[in-house]
Amino acid sequence: MSIKIGILGYGNLSRGVEAAITQNPDCELVAVFTRRDPSAVSIKTAGVSVYSEKDLPNFKDQIDVLILGGGSATDLPEQTPKYASMFNVVDSFDTHARIPEHYANVDKAAKDGGKIGIISVGWDPGMFSLLRMISTAVLPEGENYTFWGRGVSQGHSDAIRRIKGVKDARQYTVPVEASVAKVRNGENPSLSTREKHTRECFVVAEEGADQAAIEKEIKEMPNYFSDYDTTVTFISEEDLKADHAGLPHGGFVLRSGVTGHEKENKHIIEYNLKLDSNPEFTGSVLLAYARAAYRLHNEGATGCKTIFDIAPAYLSALSGEELRKTML
Amino acid sequence: MSIKIGILGYGNLSRGVEAAITQNPDCELVAVFTRRDPSAVSIKTAGVSVYSEKDLPNFKDQIDVLILGGGSATDLPEQTPKYASMFNVVDSFDTHARIPEHYANVDKAAKDGGKIGIISVGWDPGMFSLLRMISTAVLPEGENYTFWGRGVSQGHSDAIRRIKGVKDARQYTVPVEASVAKVRNGENPSLSTREKHTRECFVVAEEGADQAAIEKEIKEMPNYFSDYDTTVTFISEEDLKADHAGLPHGGFVLRSGVTGHEKENKHIIEYNLKLDSNPEFTGSVLLAYARAAYRLHNEGATGCKTIFDIAPAYLSALSGEELRKTML
Repeated sequence: MSIKIGILGYGNLSRGVEAAITQNPDCELVAVFTRRDPSAVSIKTAGVSVYSEKDLPNFKDQIDVLILGGGSATDLPEQTPKYASMFNVVDSFDTHARIPEHYANVDKAAKDGGKIGIISVGWDPGMFSLLRMISTAVLPEGENYTFWGRGVSQGHSDAIRRIKGVKDARQYTVPVEASVAKVRNGENPSLSTREKHTRECFVVAEEGADQAAIEKEIKEMPNYFSDYDTTVTFISEEDLKADHAGLPHGGFVLRSGVTGHEKENKHIIEYNLKLDSNPEFTGSVLLAYARAAYRLHNEGATGCKTIFDIAPAYLSALSGEELRKTML
Repeated sequence: MSIKIGILGYGNLSRGVEAAITQNPDCELVAVFTRRDPSAVSIKTAGVSVYSEKDLPNFKDQIDVLILGGGSATDLPEQTPKYASMFNVVDSFDTHARIPEHYANVDKAAKDGGKIGIISVGWDPGMFSLLRMISTAVLPEGENYTFWGRGVSQGHSDAIRRIKGVKDARQYTVPVEASVAKVRNGENPSLSTREKHTRECFVVAEEGADQAAIEKEIKEMPNYFSDYDTTVTFISEEDLKADHAGLPHGGFVLRSGVTGHEKENKHIIEYNLKLDSNPEFTGSVLLAYARAAYRLHNEGATGCKTIFDIAPAYLSALSGEELRKTML
């Protein structure tokens, strides 16, 4: 008896979820839903159909968990509460400042519908949050550090693409090695934005575009680039496709803490991800939490949950007995 | 209203728990219990008394959680089930092969007494198990690797001390860097015991002892050393005290997995600990799980739990709302 999964949206993240389902025999893809014309969306899984989002309410009895592949800016604030009243849902909502509000909305809807809604699942927020939280509980006196990369920031790449004269672009976020070394060494440095990450931009300019002007506009862009040491490299469209097609990412969370009556002993906890495909890894995390949503719902739980509220055993297809025997 | 903690035993691990309590204002040390003469045991915490283990049953109403600092060979198999019927208990049982049996015994006792027993808490088993389990659930196709060190193995140090002519010894377990590099590089190597760790022994010989014989006996000791590349260095008692007094340890758990319809994308998850004091870190983990035991019991839960069964939020003194706001 497999867990019946529906996916809303069919962007990179949804495709990552679809791929993850093929690696989890206890899960089964039932349907993909789209705002576009369903006939224009072709998915990888044989024998599974694409439907209009409008048809979703008709699938109430056919889907155990609906995974939302949409974006945090406009999709999820609306979709997750809406569907949490009808389905167990999992999303990757990542606008940190708006999490309390999103939590409240999803909690109300899920409780009203007797369903489970798990929000902010992925790696940051997600696995990184989990490690920050547990490490801080274990070592209450210390500092947390989060570094991202080396990896592609889609938000920053999009920001460059919006500049006049830019045909395409890819932006890599890169941790500053010297700062990372200080943290790993237990020095607990205070690090400015500039001291934590650099930004590497690979840009394809339109023919005849003013490259100097583009470079200046990138480097001076507030929020995105002006607080960072940024390098801009103009390359051909062919090179962008050949060398920068993937969506690798990663990063690490460090907790540097002390113990002992004199605080004399230092401890460093590091969690480190190196991901060839950001959306496929994130999709894999979403699917593991979909399994948890299914089980929690079967136990009668309702309401909004985050990664902090879910006992790790719910993520695994193995029984408690098997986990204790093979993983403990 | 603080969580009232009792500690059974007063070895290195119990002292680590005692130190951790000073860093967690919601926890309070109520009493330490010993099999020795209580008047011969002097603890660090002012105003707290040491009692005979025999007095423990009289403290049923004064202790919220009893943390067991004993060893896995003979103490915990007897103590944890015994006291789980009277107290919420947390132990660091680490004999992997006997965990299912220990779990069953503690589960029965805790259920009979309406208490919570959390077993096998620490970093391995413990945090390492948690990371192995979650990483495997997220990346079901891949390999797990665990490396320990560089750090002091107390079991191996004790084994050397039992050799005739040895006055004192300290053994370090050291990961083989070349093997670690292969794993981090996603090569998924098959590694023999010898390829994973080396063992460095610092030995103080009795005056006139046959050092060559001691070295031979160490290097050929089955289970402990014969399967490893082992180095033996004879040093003075003064140097042992000066340079090898601490109990540092650490290590890392890696999951190397693949995703994608063609398994074309690699991912490496690494969790890495560098600990100045193994017992203080382990004691800090035990205390965080004592907080979880207290809360689970207050919610009416009973029986044996492991680190897999406990939602991370139970470990933190912060509320769910605070955690979502600051850590997610």
